[in-house]
Amino acid sequence: MNGLDGFFVKSELIPAIVQDAVSGEVLMLAYMNRESLEKTLEDGKTWFFSRSRQRLWNKGETSGHFQTVKEIRYDCDEDTLLLLVEQTGAACHTGNRSCFFRTLYKSQEREKTDISK
Amino acid sequence: MNGLDGFFVKSELIPAIVQDAVSGEVLMLAYMNRESLEKTLEDGKTWFFSRSRQRLWNKGETSGHFQTVKEIRYDCDEDTLLLLVEQTGAACHTGNRSCFFRTLYKSQEREKTDISK
Repeated sequence: MNGLDGFFVKSELIPAIVQDAVSGEVLMLAYMNRESLEKTLEDGKTWFFSRSRQRLWNKGETSGHFQTVKEIRYDCDEDTLLLLVEQTGAACHTGNRSCFFRTLYKSQEREKTDISK
Repeated sequence: MNGLDGFFVKSELIPAIVQDAVSGEVLMLAYMNRESLEKTLEDGKTWFFSRSRQRLWNKGETSGHFQTVKEIRYDCDEDTLLLLVEQTGAACHTGNRSCFFRTLYKSQEREKTDISK
């Protein structure tokens, strides 16, 4: 898997955005090192590196809320991943479907077609 | 704007995911410091901090491809932002609409309702 090295040149840990493959909702952001990306590719479920616990972490290992990976994309700079997943249960440990359940700012005129309504 | 301090306790720079407010497409990820978040809130257009150039950067300042902010959300850990925007032109400097135009992995059985098709 030498092709993965390029992602970890600038940093050992890179952000991985997790998006619901069906609804398009952004569920969470976590960090991956090379080992967690390899395990995700092998397993088909998401693995991350916990910065606070300094260890690999299989999303759902305690909650049962696993993420089945449908697709992994990477950005133009090759330093961020986007994972499209099928989410079992809630992505957030608070019980919310998405970790982004709080709003800091909303513009006054909202589009009627806005997905965030 | 003391309420913004909490976002920058763990790190001076936090990731900001930019998502198309209408289509739900994830367009890019960039980094914000407190000053760039303040400028974004004042201006209604996105401002980031460039790690390579070590300076504030107004998305669209050279390309004209500005992002009008519709909503800003934050995650359960208060260390990642999600910006819902109205994107003018392409988000990526390559001319692609999204920076995530390349695929590393696809699962074999894809859902017919998958947004990524």
